[in-house]
This record gives sequence, C-alpha cells and structure tokens, in this order.
Amino acid sequence: MDDDVPLILTLDDSGSSTSAPLDDLDREELPNENGGSYDVINDASSPAAGDGCAQQSSTRHNWEMNYQEAAIYLQEGENNDKFFTHPKNAKALAAYLFAHNHLFYLMELSTALLLLLLSLCEAPAVPMFRLGIFVHATLELFALIVVVFELSMKMRWLGFQTFIRHKRTMVKTCVLFVQFIEAIVVLVRQTSHVRITRALRCIFLVDCRYCGAVRRNLRQIFQSLPPFIDILLLLLFFMVIFAILGFYLFSPNHSDPYFNTLENSLVNLFVLLTTSNFPDVMMPSYARNPWSCVFFIVYLSIELYFIMNLLLAVVFDTFNDIEKRKFKSLLLHKRTAIQHAYRLLITKQRPSGISFKHFEGLLRFYKPRMCARERYLTFKALNQSNTPLVSLKDFYNFYEVVGLKWKAKRNREHWFDDLPRTAFLIFKGINILVKSRVFQYTMYTVVAVNGIWILVETFMLQGGNFFSRNVPWSYIVFLTIYGVELLLKTTGLGPVEYLSSGWNLFDFSVTLFAFLGLMALAFNMEPFYFIVVLRPLQLLRLFKLKKRYRNVLDTMFELFPRMASLGLTLLIFYYCFAIVGMEFFAGVVYPNCCNTSTVADSYRWVNHTVGNKTIVEEGYYYLNNFDNILNSFVTLFELTVVNDWYIIMEGVTSQTTHWSRLYFMIFYIVTMVVMTIIVAFILDAFVFRMNYTRKNQDSEEDNGIVLEKEISKEEVVGVIELYKRTSPATETAQLQKIVLQMDKYGQMSMLFLGRRSRTKSDLSMKMYEEEIQEWYEEHSRKEESQMQLQEPASASNSSLKPLSLRQRSQTV
Amino acid sequence: MDDDVPLILTLDDSGSSTSAPLDDLDREELPNENGGSYDVINDASSPAAGDGCAQQSSTRHNWEMNYQEAAIYLQEGENNDKFFTHPKNAKALAAYLFAHNHLFYLMELSTALLLLLLSLCEAPAVPMFRLGIFVHATLELFALIVVVFELSMKMRWLGFQTFIRHKRTMVKTCVLFVQFIEAIVVLVRQTSHVRITRALRCIFLVDCRYCGAVRRNLRQIFQSLPPFIDILLLLLFFMVIFAILGFYLFSPNHSDPYFNTLENSLVNLFVLLTTSNFPDVMMPSYARNPWSCVFFIVYLSIELYFIMNLLLAVVFDTFNDIEKRKFKSLLLHKRTAIQHAYRLLITKQRPSGISFKHFEGLLRFYKPRMCARERYLTFKALNQSNTPLVSLKDFYNFYEVVGLKWKAKRNREHWFDDLPRTAFLIFKGINILVKSRVFQYTMYTVVAVNGIWILVETFMLQGGNFFSRNVPWSYIVFLTIYGVELLLKTTGLGPVEYLSSGWNLFDFSVTLFAFLGLMALAFNMEPFYFIVVLRPLQLLRLFKLKKRYRNVLDTMFELFPRMASLGLTLLIFYYCFAIVGMEFFAGVVYPNCCNTSTVADSYRWVNHTVGNKTIVEEGYYYLNNFDNILNSFVTLFELTVVNDWYIIMEGVTSQTTHWSRLYFMIFYIVTMVVMTIIVAFILDAFVFRMNYTRKNQDSEEDNGIVLEKEISKEEVVGVIELYKRTSPATETAQLQKIVLQMDKYGQMSMLFLGRRSRTKSDLSMKMYEEEIQEWYEEHSRKEESQMQLQEPASASNSSLKPLSLRQRSQTV
Repeated sequence: MDDDVPLILTLDDSGSSTSAPLDDLDREELPNENGGSYDVINDASSPAAGDGCAQQSSTRHNWEMNYQEAAIYLQEGENNDKFFTHPKNAKALAAYLFAHNHLFYLMELSTALLLLLLSLCEAPAVPMFRLGIFVHATLELFALIVVVFELSMKMRWLGFQTFIRHKRTMVKTCVLFVQFIEAIVVLVRQTSHVRITRALRCIFLVDCRYCGAVRRNLRQIFQSLPPFIDILLLLLFFMVIFAILGFYLFSPNHSDPYFNTLENSLVNLFVLLTTSNFPDVMMPSYARNPWSCVFFIVYLSIELYFIMNLLLAVVFDTFNDIEKRKFKSLLLHKRTAIQHAYRLLITKQRPSGISFKHFEGLLRFYKPRMCARERYLTFKALNQSNTPLVSLKDFYNFYEVVGLKWKAKRNREHWFDDLPRTAFLIFKGINILVKSRVFQYTMYTVVAVNGIWILVETFMLQGGNFFSRNVPWSYIVFLTIYGVELLLKTTGLGPVEYLSSGWNLFDFSVTLFAFLGLMALAFNMEPFYFIVVLRPLQLLRLFKLKKRYRNVLDTMFELFPRMASLGLTLLIFYYCFAIVGMEFFAGVVYPNCCNTSTVADSYRWVNHTVGNKTIVEEGYYYLNNFDNILNSFVTLFELTVVNDWYIIMEGVTSQTTHWSRLYFMIFYIVTMVVMTIIVAFILDAFVFRMNYTRKNQDSEEDNGIVLEKEISKEEVVGVIELYKRTSPATETAQLQKIVLQMDKYGQMSMLFLGRRSRTKSDLSMKMYEEEIQEWYEEHSRKEESQMQLQEPASASNSSLKPLSLRQRSQTV
Repeated sequence: MDDDVPLILTLDDSGSSTSAPLDDLDREELPNENGGSYDVINDASSPAAGDGCAQQSSTRHNWEMNYQEAAIYLQEGENNDKFFTHPKNAKALAAYLFAHNHLFYLMELSTALLLLLLSLCEAPAVPMFRLGIFVHATLELFALIVVVFELSMKMRWLGFQTFIRHKRTMVKTCVLFVQFIEAIVVLVRQTSHVRITRALRCIFLVDCRYCGAVRRNLRQIFQSLPPFIDILLLLLFFMVIFAILGFYLFSPNHSDPYFNTLENSLVNLFVLLTTSNFPDVMMPSYARNPWSCVFFIVYLSIELYFIMNLLLAVVFDTFNDIEKRKFKSLLLHKRTAIQHAYRLLITKQRPSGISFKHFEGLLRFYKPRMCARERYLTFKALNQSNTPLVSLKDFYNFYEVVGLKWKAKRNREHWFDDLPRTAFLIFKGINILVKSRVFQYTMYTVVAVNGIWILVETFMLQGGNFFSRNVPWSYIVFLTIYGVELLLKTTGLGPVEYLSSGWNLFDFSVTLFAFLGLMALAFNMEPFYFIVVLRPLQLLRLFKLKKRYRNVLDTMFELFPRMASLGLTLLIFYYCFAIVGMEFFAGVVYPNCCNTSTVADSYRWVNHTVGNKTIVEEGYYYLNNFDNILNSFVTLFELTVVNDWYIIMEGVTSQTTHWSRLYFMIFYIVTMVVMTIIVAFILDAFVFRMNYTRKNQDSEEDNGIVLEKEISKEEVVGVIELYKRTSPATETAQLQKIVLQMDKYGQMSMLFLGRRSRTKSDLSMKMYEEEIQEWYEEHSRKEESQMQLQEPASASNSSLKPLSLRQRSQTV
C-alpha cells in the first residue's frame, strides 16, 4: 500500500524531512517585480533571494504540496465533501489519492452491482441465472472482501476517529459485518436461511462515489419525511373515524362483505384511498340505500381530493425550501473551499493574488488532463483586473470558469470556405437552402403527411398478417426524402455543425434506425422489426414548431440526469421490497390458488372443453408473484401503479396470514412518498424553469455559457518559456502550434471561445442573485465573529487558514 | 318600473332639473375655516356664501348625487365591475339601483335554481319528483319570463350599446331565446324532444351576482386552457405512437383482446392513461412474453409519471401567474375606483381632502346599515394625518378599513368583574383553572383515551347487533366529562368569549350532538343514531396540539369559500354532462344488459338456487346509470374518481354505438382539467400560506386585522351636533349612549377596537409589498401619459375626472 503514497514524494527530490515547518504565509519567496506584463509567469520559479539549489528544491517541494492540497480543497468543495474528512497526514493523503480516482470508483461500483445482481442467482432464482449455493456464496464472500479492502482504505484516509464518527460509513461497516457472517453461515450450512438482510445490500451501491445523486435524493426524502408523516397521520386519523362510522352504518347489511368487521372496514377504506376498489366497495350499500353514496363521496373528497393534495403541497413546499437551502450551503461550501485553496497559493510577498505559475501548478493536480493552452486561457478568464495576479474576488469564479471548453474562434464561417469557387457556390447554395424557412416547413409538412400516412396505413392493415408482407412503397418514399434531407443538411452545414444540435442528432439517429429497419425488412430479419415501429418517432420533430414544446423538451433533457437518479432511488426501494417479498411470498401464488378468497376470479385458470373447442379462462393474476427478483420487480411496479393492487394483496393474504397486508400497505406508503417527491421535483423544476424563462424573456436564445478571450503572441511565447524550464516538451506542443498558426495568418493575437452548457446551479445563481449577496455577507460576518472568538487563542492566524498538510506531515 | 327611480329624486326636494350643470370641481361651496378642530363636521352643510334656501337644497341635492355615484364607483371597484358598465343617466341609475340589491340577486338566484332543479322532474325524472309535462313546461316558461324581466332591467341600466357588447349577457340572451322556443315547443307538442340545450341552463346560475366566484373559477380554467391543451396534445401524440406500436407488437397474439385493432389499441391506451385497466391490459401479452412488460412500463413512465405531472406543473405555473395578475389588476381597479370616488367628494375650496360630512354621506349610500358611531370611527381610522380632512393617500385604504367591526375596548377583563366578591373569586378560580395548561392537557388525555376506548369497543362489538343494546356506560362517563368541561369553560370565560373561538365552537357543537345522540339512544329513536357515530369527531381536538395541524386546519377554513366555489364549478360541469348523458343513455343499462361485452360480469344479476339456498350474484354496475339526474351525478362522480370507469364506459358502449366513448373520454379530459386546477389551487394556497408563515415567523399569533382608535367626548358631541341638524334622532341614539357612559365613568375619551379577519388579499398585499409600489408607480405613469394624450382635447379636465352622473342627467 505504501507504494501508492509517492505523488507527494516523487515531486520532492530531497525527501519530506528537509523542509522547515513553514506556514503557508511564511513562504520563503520574495517578490519579483522586475516589470514586464507577463514576467509574472516566471516569478516564483526563480527564487529571487539567490539561495542554493537545495533551498530551491525545498521551495518547489513545498509548492507542490500546496498545489496538491489546494486541489484537494477544491475537489472537496465541488463534491460537497465536508472538510473534516480532509486528509490529515502523508499516509492519509496517500490513501485519499488512492481512494479518489476513477479506477477505485469503478471497483466500488462493480462490487456493489455484483452483490446486488447475486439475487438473480440466489435461492428463488431467475431460472436462466440459477447458480449452485457454493458458487454464489463464494462470489458473495469475494465481493465482501473487496468491500473490506475499500473500507480499510477509507479508514486509512479518514483515521479511526473520523471513521467511526462518519455515520454512513459506520452503517456500511455494520451491514458488511452481518453480511459476512451470513455468507459464511450459508457456505457452512450449504442451504440458505431467511436472509431479509440481503435487502441492506443496497447500501453498498448508495455509498458509491458515482451514486452521489442517489444519496442526495435519499437525504431529501428523509428531510421531507417529518411534515409528510404529520399529514399522513391526519389521513390515517380520518380513515379510522370513517372506518368506525362505516362499520356502524353498513355492517347490518349482510350482503356487504366490505364492512362486516372493523378490520375489513379499515382495510377497505385504506384501499379506497387508492381508489382501487372504488365503485365496487360502494355498490352493496348503494343498492340498498342510494343515499349511502354520500358517505363515500365525503370520504373521497376529504381524503383523496383534499388531504392527498395537501400532502403534495406540504412535500412540494418542503422540497422547495430544501432545494434553496441546499443550493445556499453548497454555494457557501464552495466559497470556503476556494478561500482555503487561495490561502495555499498566495505568497507572503504578494498576498493580493495568485500568479499564473501557481495557478498552473494547482490545475496540474486539479485537472491533470487539461492542456497548457487551456490552463492559460482559464487563468486569463478568471483574471478580470488585467494585473498579472488573480485576486480572491476573481478566484471565487473558479468553478464557473474551470468547466469551460476552449476553442479557437474561427474566421471561416462555413466548412467549405476553403474549397474552390464552383464547389463553394454549390455548397453555399445548399447552405442557404437548408437554412431557409421554406425548406424547414416543407420538411414539417412531409413529416405530418408521413404521420397521417402511417396512421391510415395501420388502420387499413388491421387483421392482416403484416409480418410477411413486402416493404410498403410509402416507407421507401418517405425514407428517401429523409435521406435526402439528411444529406443536404450534412453537406450544407458541415458534419460537425450538423451534429452539434441535439435535434439534428435526433433526426439523424431516427433516420438511421428507420434505414436499418428497412434493411431488416428487406432481408426478413424479424427480430429487427421493432425498429420499423420506431418510425412514428419522426413525428416528434413536429414539436420543434412550438416554443412551449421546445421549452418542455429542453427542460426534459436538462432534467434527465436528475430523473434517472430518482428512478434509481426508486429501484433501490424496489430492491429492498423485492428481497423481503421473495423471502416471504415466493411461490405462494399459483393458478387457482385463491379459490376461497374474494378475488378468486383473478387467479382462476380453467380449461373448459365445450364441444371440440378448448376455452381457456385465464385470470392471469398468478403471474404477479414474488417467485424471482425480476417477477418481483414487475409486481412491485404494478403495485406502484396502484390500480387493482388489492387483488395482488388479497391473493397473497389468502395464502399466508393477514399480516401480509402490512407489507403491501407499507409499500404503498413508501411509493407514495417517493412518487410525491418525484411529482414535487418535476413541478419544482418546471416551475423554476418557467419562472426563469419569464424573467429573462428579453434575453437572447439560450446557448449555454459562453466566454470570449483574446491572447496575444507575446503571451503565448511567455507561457512556452515558462513550460520549457519545468515540463517536458509535449506539453507545449499545442502552444507552439498556435504560434505557428498566428505566424501563418500574420495575426498578432487570437480569439478563443470558452463554452459549457448551463446547469441548474447557473440558473439558481441568476434566480437568487439578490439573496446570494446577502448570504455572502452573512457568511463573512459569521466568519469574522468566529475569528474574533479564536483571536485570543491564536492571534496571528487568519480564520481562513486551512490546516496545512505539511505541518502535520512533519509530526508523523 | 319608474316607481323605483326615486332614490335620487326623493333626496332632491327641488327636482332633478333645478341644478346647474356643475362640474364636481366647480361646486358652489366655500371653505368654512372658522377654527375648531371638529368644526369640519359642519363645514359643508351650511353654505358659507349666504345664499337662499333653494340654493342650499340644490347644493344638497348635488351632494347626494355625488355621494351616490361615489358609492357606486366604490362598489364597482370592490366587485371588479368594469367602469364602462357605470350607469350613464338617471334612468340607468334607477335600473342600476334596482338590479343591485339583495332582493334582486335572490330573485336571480332562485330563478336559476328553479330552472336547474326542473331537470329533477323532467322526462327521465327522479321518481319522487315526477311532474306532468304540462306542469314542468309551464314552470319553465314562468322562470324564463322572470329571466327576461331581469335582462330587460339590465339592458335599461347598461343601455343597448353596452348590452350587446357585454359577451356573457349576450350568450345568456341567446340561450334564453333558445330555451324559450324549446319550452313552447314542448308545451305545444306535449312531449319532450332531445333537449341537450338544457345543459346550457347553467349559464343562468353562473350569471348570478352571488356566483361571482364561480365565474372567476371558470375564467381561470379557460385562461389555463391553452398551455393545458398544448401538453394534452403531447400526451395524445405519444398515445397514438404507442397505440400503433402496441398494435404491431401485440395483435399477433390472438388471446389478447386489448390490441387486436388499432381502435381497441387506442381506447385501451387511453384507459391505461387513467391506470384503470392496468395489470389486466398487460396480462395476456405478459403471459406470452415476460419482456412485453417493458412496453407498458415505458408507456406509463412517460405518460403517467412524466407528462401528466408536466400538465400539473404547467397548470400550476399558469395558475400562479394568473393569480398574481388578477390580484394586480383588482388592486389597480380598486385604486382607480377610489380615485373616481375621491374626485366626487372633494370641494373646490378644499381639494386636499374629504371632510367627515361628505364621507358620512358616502357611507350612507355605500353601507346603509352602518351606524353613526361606526361611520365616525371609520373616518378616524382612515384619517392618519390628524387634520380634519382625509387625503387621497389616506383614502386609498378605504377598502381595508371599511370592513372593520368596531367595539368599545372594555376596561373589565372578565364578564364576572362586576359580581359580588365571593362569586368573583369562584369564577376567577374557574377562569384560572380553565386557562391552565394542566386542564388543557388533561382534556387532551381524556379525548385520547376516549378515542382508544371507542376503537376497542367497536372492535369488540363486531358481529353483535349493536342497535338494540343499552347505552354503554363509557359513553355516559365521557359525555359527562365533556359536559363538565363545557360548563367550566362557559362559566370561566363567559359565553361570549367562549364561543368566539372556532375551536370552542367546534367542541360545543360536537358535545351537543353527542348529547342529542345519547337522547336518541335512550329513547330508541334509530334515525338519530348516526349522531352517535359522530363521537369520534371529538378526537379532532387532538390536532390542536401540533402547530402544523393548526396551520393546516386554519388554512382549510380560510380556503373553504374558494373550495366551495370550485366544488360548485365542478357541479356545473356535472350538470351539463348529466343532461347530455340522460338524453343519450337513459335506460340503456340494466341487469344482465351487456352479456356480449367484455365487462358482462359487472352487469350480471343472477339468482342461483343451490339446494335450498338462494345465492344472488350481483355485478351491481347496472346501478351506475343515467336514468335520472341524481343517478347521473353519482355515475359522474364515479367517473371522476376514475377507477374502473371503463366498465361503465364499455357497458354503455355495448348497448349504444362506440361513439359513446367520446362522451366518456371528453368527460375524463374535462374533469382532468378541473381537477388539475383544483390541485393547483390547493397547492398554490398552501404554499402561499406557508411562505407567508415563514416570512412572518417572528410576528405574533395571527388574530386578523386589528386597529385601535381613541375618540374624545368633544368629538362625539360634535358628531351628534352634526347629525341633529340633518338626520332623525334615532341615528344618534348610540352616540348619546357613549356620552352617557363616559359621564358615568368620568372618562374624557374612549378606546375602540376595529377588527376583521385576514383575507387572501391582505396576505397578498404583504407578500407582494415591494412589487405593489412598482405597480402603483407604473399605473400612475400610464395615467399621466394618457392624460397628456387627452390634454389637447380637454385641457382643463383631470384624467381622473369620472363621467359625472349629473352632467349626463341634465342632457336626458
């Protein structure tokens, strides 16, 4: 393990013990103010106080450590990791670095997935994936050992104290322990016992670095719970009142099976809450006395139409509030991270800002993949004062700027500008054609006609066996038109520009699929036939026509990551319930299983033979079982949709005990929570977006964040000089190319465009613009008061002074 | 009709033709500044420019007209009536006054209700209410003639020009015309034809003055429609795509009845949108190939969980926006109304404000029921500058202040302060006891125990015939405790204070009901038994314990009027659909009617005789019919709840044509709109309220709007003097009483408290505080620019100068 420590040692040629315990404000570096606007690049690399070589390398080593620590601070700020998990010494740093790279993350993820997927092969297994008990138990043990290794790395990085204080990690450790014992027990006994604890395996997935969004969702769900539970109690309270009332009112009616006992009354009113049994539950009493419908109307009005909406309102409100608070705390956390990093990068001699040399050093650790050109452009973009130093105020924009992708702004407008005259004119013509409104609307018309055609065609087709038919000519015609359009657009706009628009990409892929479908059809490859039915997707292009749809679809794409993470969260809940369901209800439901229950019809499976015809009466509900994990997922989805869920519940209940209902009711409430949160999230996101659009109605079309920076030849040469002294030549290759290009076109400077897509955070920044200033002020006031409290203890230290790595590495 | 004109003539002793065409700024009235802070009361009543009696009465007449017109402006402002419907001459004014009082409103309402209720007795009538065709047609004609009378009054008031420009009135006239002809046709033919137009009768109700809230709701619904329809199209578009896809995928499976034709495919996916047929529609294909569940999961995820929520989001957003715009326009409208009224009340000599004399004159018309004391207090409350005049700025608060209920602030704290010493001490003790926390929590405990007791008791009771049993002792015990509590509270707090709290009122009525229930039980009056089952409502008191519940319940009570109007709006839609349903589907559904359809089971009604037992198999769905209006309403409610609605649809469809489905689908979409709006409304109201609470967390408990004003003896005497000269002695009786009371206690002044409950408008005022200032500025800027445009035409007139009644009355 100690092999991985080096990053800090390899850069240090004189060993970690050489440097004196220097505070970051005591750096032995003197100002180097010998003029020249870009000499700043060279300032720190040549110690002005003419010391020996050892001194220089020591300074350099210190700097490298500072760069690394600053980069770690910035990463922590970005990932919203609390600073108390900051590595405290060299060993911890090594572990930190080991545990913070994509290989490690992938290992984490794959172990977690392996553990989760094991349930495909365990006891009530999916037939296809069934494995021997020895095989899957060994696999499980292996995965658990990997988790142990991961946890030990984490402990090394956090230290024992922090490790046991970190709640999530502790829970994970406990779960790991239990799983380990159980896996060994299974291996020894060679049979599986009731392992409900398998439901806890999800925590390994939740704890993955890549599942941060899921963790955030879960946190949000738990934070929304208290008000949710309050309203839920109100709901249940009314349910109990109505159950008692219903029992008194309807139990004298002996043909009413729904209210004959208080328990039935309660259960049926719970189901009525989901409307699943609605007109049926009312019918026996309604048949006897028409006015009894009042009871049900009042119940539904209060419970379903009022309190359930209230639930949504309360969750939505909490959600809104949490979102804003989260944004605020994240913003302030990032700000603190930037302050920590800033303190590590300024020199004693020049405390007013960071020079490029140090900024570059930081970026080397923070974003190793960034090339020299981009690093310099980022520095330029941050530096708004035109001095050679980036001040703290400028540095606050670090996160907004560092994500930009830089590209030289081309003078050429089209890709064919360099072609010979004739070709240029042809392509220019195509370009104008393709961009014209007439062309666009013609295409819309074609798409609309195609849509109607498909509809009519399908309508005429019904009953016929359409699989064996030839390729319809209309299909070929429309496909040809789309093909020509695609060709024209690609040539007219150039492939790069064409594919840079999401809509064009969509057109392209749909046309491609349709073409593949045609091929499949021509060669009679049936499995590919489903591609043909994707044809109607072309019609989606029509939605470009209206602004609201563009807005909706854009928002949809923006929301997609969040939606996916919410879906994953839901799946995690599904997994837990599926495991529990499998342990208790696997195999209890089968055809004709529930003939004594009230839902017998739905489970019936009869083979009549009337005359010489066999009539099969199928209730099909026996298919909704917990026999393996895939079936369980489908069953749980059906429970989520809620309609007729009580048939599944009653079927299982009739085969087990009536306590089984608890499982289904709890599942209903849990999905209600998650679904309410999903609705609240969609509501929030769209309302936010629409408010934003309304606020910025006058501003131009939304193209993401764009920044423009000009750099002159001298600057580039200066940067190359700097790199030559410290780094291998490969780094400067791109910079050299820029110089060559400038020479070729005889330019003295070159324009670069930085671009990135707009995130929710950018929108929030704009929405809360005014409040943000208040937050900052409040934040700095708090810090000042904290500083004053610390003053007596350490009068000379700034409150922003981070715990320096180096100081502590000395003590180890 | 001309008999009703006088209000303006009776007050005018010299006839309407005597007064010169006076502009409201040219009033012949001179200042009367002979000192004395309350002489202002006398200023205008004695024309200082020593003219004759005729002159005086002319001035008085002019003033009366001004008061009346100002009062009308203020009413228009309050009711959000547009100013172009302002009565333009004396005749119009008479009609206006005739059409604007509660008697007329009640007539409007009762005619509308009569017309609506006729459908209880017409053709497919409720058996109990069946009337001969001659009777109900005559009743209808009578009601229609009353409507004609109402409309003619309206025409008289609005004038022909405005009348035909007013859309709602025009629609009403057309409907009236059609209904008239149809009623005559029915009378002549003596049989009813297909009268779908009866559905339009709702417009008579909607047009009632008392149904303003319903009109507002309808307007809001129509305003929310465009974005709603956009998203609906998106929904339908995906539905069509999936229908085609489903048809291709599942029609080869011959055991799948849901996708065998494109029409079936579409209908079933529409029903699936409501989840009503969910696991069933999937089952045949799922049984064949487990992976086909993906189709359904994707469809439901897109349509149900995404687009449907999007629908809510869009409606919610539009709703929010409309609410704010509505609030803004209402606010500005009120402001303009106040400006108009103000112009009519100031004198040329004192253009800086309104004196009490004129203010009192206004209030006499605006709120005839107000007593002299309250008028003076309202004036004092408005007047914040302590000068004898109310400036325009103060007058802007008119609507906020005029609703206050004034009460003298008592020096006595408790009702028993005047009692002899011993009695005082006893009651004081009770008072302290009742207000103590211990007492409150004891009562909560009792209620909780009672709740558990009821639950356990009911649980033990099951199966027994509980109607014939004796009164359970527990019931008597708990009722005694509640009775004692009620008694203690009433004596300790005094009946007035006790009943002024909503919660106490609730306790009181529940206890009273429970007592009545006990009586009913004791005397074996079964019909009253239902009161006994109201017992659990006592448990609602427990919700006082938690702040969130108090908030929720308070908001619920605040929302109640709006909710009721939304419910009424929904009922109006129900009515329209019920009429259409009755015309087309009355009598088509009966037991065993649909044996050929897929939903035959639900309509089956069979009498087996197995051995000596008769087994009745009832599907009951034949009860969900359109055989009369009450049945239709219940059926429509079931359709609103959505679950299993397709059984009703398919039942009706199997007996008629498959075009009947359109009726059900359109109904579904309409209720979806209304329900979404209801959800949006509840969401909006609660989120608004919670934001408000969050904003005002530090402020004290919400007790409505309270204002405190002190008036001195001199003032009261001054006011009495003023009244003595102009009005009968009865008006001053209360004021005299105040003077007597002051003399008795030897006070020189008396404190009064004005109180009213907080309305949504007050909350909005506070929420939009900052924006409101902007709106005002923008508004006055707009007015100024309008004034500048008008300048050339009428240089001397202020833009705020309303069209004076008097001027126009001269020309008639």
